[in-house]
Amino acid sequence: MHSVRFTAETSSDGVVERDFTVGEVPGVLWSPVSGSGSVSGRAPLVLLGHGGGQDKRAPGMVGRARRLVTGCGFTVAAVDAPGHGGRPRTAADERQIAALRQAMAAGEPVGPIVVRYNAELAERAVPEWRATLDALQELPEIGAGGPVGYFGLTMGTAIGVPLTAADPRITAAVFGVFWHDSLTEAARQITVPVEFALQWDDEHIPRESGLALFDAFASKEKTLHANAGTHMALPRFEADSAVRFFARHLGRAGTSPA
Amino acid sequence: MHSVRFTAETSSDGVVERDFTVGEVPGVLWSPVSGSGSVSGRAPLVLLGHGGGQDKRAPGMVGRARRLVTGCGFTVAAVDAPGHGGRPRTAADERQIAALRQAMAAGEPVGPIVVRYNAELAERAVPEWRATLDALQELPEIGAGGPVGYFGLTMGTAIGVPLTAADPRITAAVFGVFWHDSLTEAARQITVPVEFALQWDDEHIPRESGLALFDAFASKEKTLHANAGTHMALPRFEADSAVRFFARHLGRAGTSPA
Repeated sequence: MHSVRFTAETSSDGVVERDFTVGEVPGVLWSPVSGSGSVSGRAPLVLLGHGGGQDKRAPGMVGRARRLVTGCGFTVAAVDAPGHGGRPRTAADERQIAALRQAMAAGEPVGPIVVRYNAELAERAVPEWRATLDALQELPEIGAGGPVGYFGLTMGTAIGVPLTAADPRITAAVFGVFWHDSLTEAARQITVPVEFALQWDDEHIPRESGLALFDAFASKEKTLHANAGTHMALPRFEADSAVRFFARHLGRAGTSPA
Repeated sequence: MHSVRFTAETSSDGVVERDFTVGEVPGVLWSPVSGSGSVSGRAPLVLLGHGGGQDKRAPGMVGRARRLVTGCGFTVAAVDAPGHGGRPRTAADERQIAALRQAMAAGEPVGPIVVRYNAELAERAVPEWRATLDALQELPEIGAGGPVGYFGLTMGTAIGVPLTAADPRITAAVFGVFWHDSLTEAARQITVPVEFALQWDDEHIPRESGLALFDAFASKEKTLHANAGTHMALPRFEADSAVRFFARHLGRAGTSPA
């Protein structure tokens, strides 16, 4: 098994940000300045999955990470998905991306291409995430057995749903803004609390497809947040809602969201 | 026009609670101890509508009122709906209630009866609410022209949707847990921000009916919160979400929810 290898460290506004690799996979770990390295074990950890074409340090990722660290005292990890953030692309990646660009240029539906491409990426990304989690739990400030959350929308959902179905260490998850087609079977295996976001006027994802994916989760506790607006117009307050969701489900006594 | 006549006043934990009447309609006004009577005009006001068979002082009503007062510094008003909270029932009220009890005892669908009865109540309740709002806005600590919200689920939605459609003073509203049948037309006239709750496994209200009502609002900003669970199992955190919604849409600078 690979260990976490730290390659850089910066700190600002109470948050320590450390670049790391686990094998070939590059990641970032955000943690509270006060808690970093000084608390032993069982600190809540949230895994952040980025969207398609983005990477571990996209502005939305950093914003969510900082909210979770400063609001709840959690540790947060993100990795670059296969073919993303400067990681090498396979010939299959290149073909899918070319097909996607062609469809967008021609004004044709992108859904079938995104669904297929992201399902392929998930097959590679899920084992990477699990190996990363193995390695992170070897760190003294995280430890094994602590609560783990997963937070990822769009491609982060395409990867996160099969990851959460496969890995019993993940005990709460925020997903959203994806088609049901490739994910229904994995969603039916998920029983942990889920918050799921969709855009009511999504120009790419049919409303019924998003509702069907929410419906598929076997979780006793699940909440759908559907907002008026198009695919990219998810309101910023949904990030705060996700932070509160993790505070409820992963939080230690005394922690509360900002 | 009727004025507000105060009949009793108590105070606890930072909240002043005053009983009042406007004409024949009994109500309660909750306000911050520090602000009561001392601030002039334009304080945000939230109108709370209770559920069927409940009244202005039901535990859920008091809980929401206290959250809005202590969390945001808002003033909150509730009144008893016609035929509720000890107010006289008409012969028509008695017939509808008897029909409802009979259907429940026989295990028959209550939806058609509730929809019809609540539509009748709304015809009487909307003018009462508007007269109450006229009178409340004459009070120096509320004043005319300040932001007004409406918050009511179940029967509070059956009354609140036509009220919000009719009264341009209401600039943000939280509704939920009701059928679409009688309310679609009024909902189509509503353009202010709306947060709407439904229960995904409601044994009385078909999922499609709740989704159709959410869909009908013409509001550019609207959010659906659908939670797993039965008709009566709305999670308590939805009350906190409603408080944050009003803080966003009615709040003055410097106020924030608890």
